[in-house]
Amino acid sequence: METIQSDNYPIFFENSIQELLKFVKDGNYSRIFILTDENTAEHCLHLVKPHFEGMDNFDLLEIPAGEENKNIDFCIGVWKLLIDFEADRKSLLINLGGGVITDMGGFAASTYKRGIDFVHVPTTLLSQVDASVGGKTGIDLDSVKNIVGTFTQPKAVFIAVDFLKTLSKREILSGTAEMLKHGLIIDAAYWNALKNSDLSIPDAQLIYRSVEIKNEVVIEDPTEKGVRKSLNFGHTIGHAVETNSLMKDKKPLTHGEAIAIGMICESYLSNKSAGLSNNELDEIVKVFGNLYPKYTLKKEDYPELLAIMLKDKKNINGKINCTLLTSIGQYKLDNFFTNNELCESLDYYASL
Amino acid sequence: METIQSDNYPIFFENSIQELLKFVKDGNYSRIFILTDENTAEHCLHLVKPHFEGMDNFDLLEIPAGEENKNIDFCIGVWKLLIDFEADRKSLLINLGGGVITDMGGFAASTYKRGIDFVHVPTTLLSQVDASVGGKTGIDLDSVKNIVGTFTQPKAVFIAVDFLKTLSKREILSGTAEMLKHGLIIDAAYWNALKNSDLSIPDAQLIYRSVEIKNEVVIEDPTEKGVRKSLNFGHTIGHAVETNSLMKDKKPLTHGEAIAIGMICESYLSNKSAGLSNNELDEIVKVFGNLYPKYTLKKEDYPELLAIMLKDKKNINGKINCTLLTSIGQYKLDNFFTNNELCESLDYYASL
Repeated sequence: METIQSDNYPIFFENSIQELLKFVKDGNYSRIFILTDENTAEHCLHLVKPHFEGMDNFDLLEIPAGEENKNIDFCIGVWKLLIDFEADRKSLLINLGGGVITDMGGFAASTYKRGIDFVHVPTTLLSQVDASVGGKTGIDLDSVKNIVGTFTQPKAVFIAVDFLKTLSKREILSGTAEMLKHGLIIDAAYWNALKNSDLSIPDAQLIYRSVEIKNEVVIEDPTEKGVRKSLNFGHTIGHAVETNSLMKDKKPLTHGEAIAIGMICESYLSNKSAGLSNNELDEIVKVFGNLYPKYTLKKEDYPELLAIMLKDKKNINGKINCTLLTSIGQYKLDNFFTNNELCESLDYYASL
Repeated sequence: METIQSDNYPIFFENSIQELLKFVKDGNYSRIFILTDENTAEHCLHLVKPHFEGMDNFDLLEIPAGEENKNIDFCIGVWKLLIDFEADRKSLLINLGGGVITDMGGFAASTYKRGIDFVHVPTTLLSQVDASVGGKTGIDLDSVKNIVGTFTQPKAVFIAVDFLKTLSKREILSGTAEMLKHGLIIDAAYWNALKNSDLSIPDAQLIYRSVEIKNEVVIEDPTEKGVRKSLNFGHTIGHAVETNSLMKDKKPLTHGEAIAIGMICESYLSNKSAGLSNNELDEIVKVFGNLYPKYTLKKEDYPELLAIMLKDKKNINGKINCTLLTSIGQYKLDNFFTNNELCESLDYYASL
């Protein structure tokens, strides 16, 4: 599989760890840091770290795992570690992990000394097909997802499907939801290929196509003024469900599980007001229904869900904004809904 | 005085408050916020706020005053206020105040929802000739100045010399040091004009020239890869003295007072190793000596000062980097010194 060229940086798919070592060597960096979390350290670090241990300008920065740690306190921790290790402007930060590590590490690097180089080595399917491509960095604040961040491109992305062997089926399926989204918004043939595959064991070629789609969209619109908003399909409602679950559930939903719920609700809205056919809605509901367990949306949580949606970055003038589908493979931007309509779509999911 | 054109944004000097109102009106922003601190609110806000009070999409964000407040906690406070006020991506943040407000407000805006528009209305001489121009945003962390920040340009800068009437002589002189620096590094004629002026009442034309110089430098090198480092003359040692004073002195040095000490020390180093003549060194010492009170540098503080210098953003590979003068009006980048040499320059200041 060929290296994908993004906005001034390459996304490697073949021999990715060797490519990383070559990049580090050629970059002539004064200091090299790998940022990782406990989980990644346990399962993935052994594929990478031995190559670095001989270097006397290398240090490992480890933080605890979990989306709840993508907050400003842990980011301050990363900045302080960089200060303590006397990281200078010619340092490199290698973000080795899932989306929490790539999002927060990207933000920490893009703001430390007003910006040092960073690269991503995504170790989950979700971060491979979503977080690692597109130059969005960010952290959560007051339970508002990615409310603080920058648009800063990594210097390179190194995707190695070997890492996926360490993931549970549930973690794989968290990434699958974003792959299915890529098909739904832009590529009906890809959606069809996905729905006929065994998505608990993702095929490298399908992952590659997902990265390709995401890359095409973000290159065209790096700062989300237009077409990039297509990637938000399912995310207005999905993010709210995810945030609410993170706050309240003992075993919170994964990102993919939440986004799958969001895509079902927003497909319902697409059917109501954007031209998505009944058959297509049924097909989407069936595909997600087969992949993800049913989740109970409580009526008493609706006000909280709406309050979270109101804080979404995509809103303008206090109106809640969704990206919808006019058909499978075709999106429509900037659809605004009332609270009643949004609750109706939640009721639809609950009724399934 | 003509509007100065910077890197895609204008710097207004005439009728600046009217220009601000015109900018706000033409910008069609969903929400307008003025960020200010207690001091500015007391002395300067009355020149601005009455024009905004009629607007129903306007809110005031006020924080306490002081460099010690340019930290992450206050920045988090600004982000949270923006969340609470439901600021969306089409919001505008107007930073009304000194360098703490423009630096921190710029950082908060450049990272909130991955970047909203901001403009500066600098109300101190220091922020007019220094912080407001050049697109550096930043906050302090662990007493390391501006260690976290971005390079993000404001959409406009509005300079009104009327604000300066509210400043004490000491605050004026804090800005004067940066004006003198602009002469020393790039424009000997400007240095001569300044040294023959009454610098406790700065002339609008002199302020204009200082902004012009700073603007020329930062346009040529926005992200400080080369020529922009000339602006760091006096700052390697000056920042360390300032940080140390902020931590230890009951009445800390102003930025200008600290930078004046730094410029004397670094002129000493320039004389020793970069070709600055004895006469020029004496002239520089005399000008600063006449403007700023003598400060006692304690021998016991030297290790702390060196430790702070070592954390400076400009260092590479742990070597302490200074910008020096080869003569008045001519700079030389990337001079590296040992601890002994740096201490010798501190001794020189102490011996005066």
